[in-house]
Amino acid sequence: MRSDTSHYTERARALDAADPLADLRQRFLLPEDVVYLDGNSLGALPAAVPPALEYAVRRQWGAGLIRSWNTHAWWEAPLRVGDTIGRLIGAAPGQTVVGDSTSVQIYNALTAAARLRPGRPLLAVDPDHFPTDRYIAASVARTQGLQLREVTPEALPAFLAGEGERVAVAAYPPVDYRTGELFDMAALTAAVHAAGALVLWDLCHAAGAFPVELDALGVDLAVGCGYKYLSGGPGAPAFLYVARRHQAGFDPALTGWNGHARPFDPTEEYQPAEGIGRARIGTPPMLSLLALEAALTVFADVDLAQVRAKSLSVTGFFLECAEALLPGFAVVTPREPERRGSQVTLRHPEAYALVQALAARNVIGDMRAPDLLRFGVNALYVSHGDVLRAVTCLQEVIDEGAHLPYLTQQRPAVI
Amino acid sequence: MRSDTSHYTERARALDAADPLADLRQRFLLPEDVVYLDGNSLGALPAAVPPALEYAVRRQWGAGLIRSWNTHAWWEAPLRVGDTIGRLIGAAPGQTVVGDSTSVQIYNALTAAARLRPGRPLLAVDPDHFPTDRYIAASVARTQGLQLREVTPEALPAFLAGEGERVAVAAYPPVDYRTGELFDMAALTAAVHAAGALVLWDLCHAAGAFPVELDALGVDLAVGCGYKYLSGGPGAPAFLYVARRHQAGFDPALTGWNGHARPFDPTEEYQPAEGIGRARIGTPPMLSLLALEAALTVFADVDLAQVRAKSLSVTGFFLECAEALLPGFAVVTPREPERRGSQVTLRHPEAYALVQALAARNVIGDMRAPDLLRFGVNALYVSHGDVLRAVTCLQEVIDEGAHLPYLTQQRPAVI
Repeated sequence: MRSDTSHYTERARALDAADPLADLRQRFLLPEDVVYLDGNSLGALPAAVPPALEYAVRRQWGAGLIRSWNTHAWWEAPLRVGDTIGRLIGAAPGQTVVGDSTSVQIYNALTAAARLRPGRPLLAVDPDHFPTDRYIAASVARTQGLQLREVTPEALPAFLAGEGERVAVAAYPPVDYRTGELFDMAALTAAVHAAGALVLWDLCHAAGAFPVELDALGVDLAVGCGYKYLSGGPGAPAFLYVARRHQAGFDPALTGWNGHARPFDPTEEYQPAEGIGRARIGTPPMLSLLALEAALTVFADVDLAQVRAKSLSVTGFFLECAEALLPGFAVVTPREPERRGSQVTLRHPEAYALVQALAARNVIGDMRAPDLLRFGVNALYVSHGDVLRAVTCLQEVIDEGAHLPYLTQQRPAVI
Repeated sequence: MRSDTSHYTERARALDAADPLADLRQRFLLPEDVVYLDGNSLGALPAAVPPALEYAVRRQWGAGLIRSWNTHAWWEAPLRVGDTIGRLIGAAPGQTVVGDSTSVQIYNALTAAARLRPGRPLLAVDPDHFPTDRYIAASVARTQGLQLREVTPEALPAFLAGEGERVAVAAYPPVDYRTGELFDMAALTAAVHAAGALVLWDLCHAAGAFPVELDALGVDLAVGCGYKYLSGGPGAPAFLYVARRHQAGFDPALTGWNGHARPFDPTEEYQPAEGIGRARIGTPPMLSLLALEAALTVFADVDLAQVRAKSLSVTGFFLECAEALLPGFAVVTPREPERRGSQVTLRHPEAYALVQALAARNVIGDMRAPDLLRFGVNALYVSHGDVLRAVTCLQEVIDEGAHLPYLTQQRPAVI
């Protein structure tokens, strides 16, 4: 029997009525009837993107042709968009570049980081890090002659206190992509630095979701993708932050011609550009990059502290509703606001089928094997009413057994 | 004084009237008044792209959201588009993947190639290769503990006869990007194989320009970009070909999660997918990739042998006109058809200013320092009349001194 939800309906209505960011949803072309809780996997389409891309294709590429590298400043785009993202992650201009995938950026950043700390044989990574981060770290360890150490964020300070002098780089996410747990970036950065090592933060689940202060924390390197909370479109190019103090020594593996000091007057041997420009690699996918640039206009007048406040309100309300109304589910995401990113994760043995049944009712989340239901909250377009609908929809699905047909269904390529 | 061009005007008219591919130009949204001879740097916009991209953005991303990875087969796109390109380069299905930049693909391919030939300490590259190829090769040599040897294509057979047993990989372009000279892919591939080494061909200036027969020649690895003769848009993703016989041993540096055997059921250690799928890296820039896929529909019913025949006719006519009408220019591109790619390069000490003056008259080529004027011929949209107009325009510019103001002009970022 379903619990009474009228109390929560009232609460959601009041909270949304008082939401100073409520109008931001109109900046996205979200289908009216959809509750979209997968913006941590692929952000919704900003309304600014289609006309910008139409212009980029027909006017810049079609009419401008090769000249648009100059006349429409395509050449500057990786650093220009990098600076725009820099404003969202606490990076002063000239330290962020955009292009390539997160995997490629991690490879380049880790290689360069290891070279900045020669003689230190260890590379520390989170065993629960997104797989690509671990796989790439293992590959870098192999080519750079390092050993990989899997250490949880909780255990990292103690590990560094013991073996820190042997650690070259620690590569961590501030948010666990499965559970939504938020780690203390400041404390971990300080612990890594106390050991004389460098830190590489993977901001995929942080950039655009809440304020990040790379410069203020003295972070060394960071990467992140453009298609989650930044809503830059499927496979949008990733970004790389290299703190200014490390740029002169930044010596990456991928020495593509776009990072050369004089790309159109090449030299016999590779001569890296000054500053962050040396972190460029090859020619970036310009249409995807210009879509990302248009998407970022959504943030132009937005205060990320307000986004964070709303996100915590929405995820907090979600957790409260889930605890009260979904007795068969375990709440995985920490209740303490300071330990919570911008998503809610629930555990249920039939997670896959439940997420499919929800999607059939236009409530879109995702799952991570074997038993996690994952609901991302992009506070620019997700309301308290949305997450309540997700909870009540889950109640209905369970009550009606609407998920049962999916238990035996063959899973699609991407889940 | 200007030479009489009426004879050439008649010839161009007759050749274009008899051109079986003349109608293909209508598949591109080229400005009416432009002669576009820079399709070897950025291909013109295919008419199929804008509506396909509009659909991808509004319907697939905007309305489909995360579900489009399945419902619109985004996940399969890198291999699907790879197979489409495969048809243009003589590669049977299942050997070509698309994603990332050419620089990244070269890095991955060279690393894997070196690992397929352990114990061989040399990596042979063309000293006149496009700079990124040389820079990336030097970086791979550094991480893999190899030594770089710069050997021209002409000298390669003799070099291999002497030191071939020590060579792991030879990385070459079939076309010199500056001069347009075409090398003998079959002979060089055979020479590399006779030494027991692997060959990596960079097809940037070949794919889509003329027939390439990777399978028939027994090529090991190849890369190429999507934005030159394939007209996939600025920075369109690159492709990588790995011959089927090498796939099981293909062990790349960039072990991104898209190349994992079970990307959504990850394992502790990286387990590569079967087949060409293991050459995937991170999430590809989907909008740029879908633009490339739409662009490739231009080739659907096109016979590349006919494209080659027309290209040779147009570049041959260009050379003939240049020799007759442009006495102050040296012809750099070989006259012999079998030694010519799909471009014409002229030498003149004022190359930069001349190219600028041409562009001001809507004849678009480019230059390569210090003194090369480069004119690419994409036979899908460049006619004999177009190249004659380029030649007569150059005559006019010289006669009128229209290029002189550009001699002292500051050069833009991209030339």
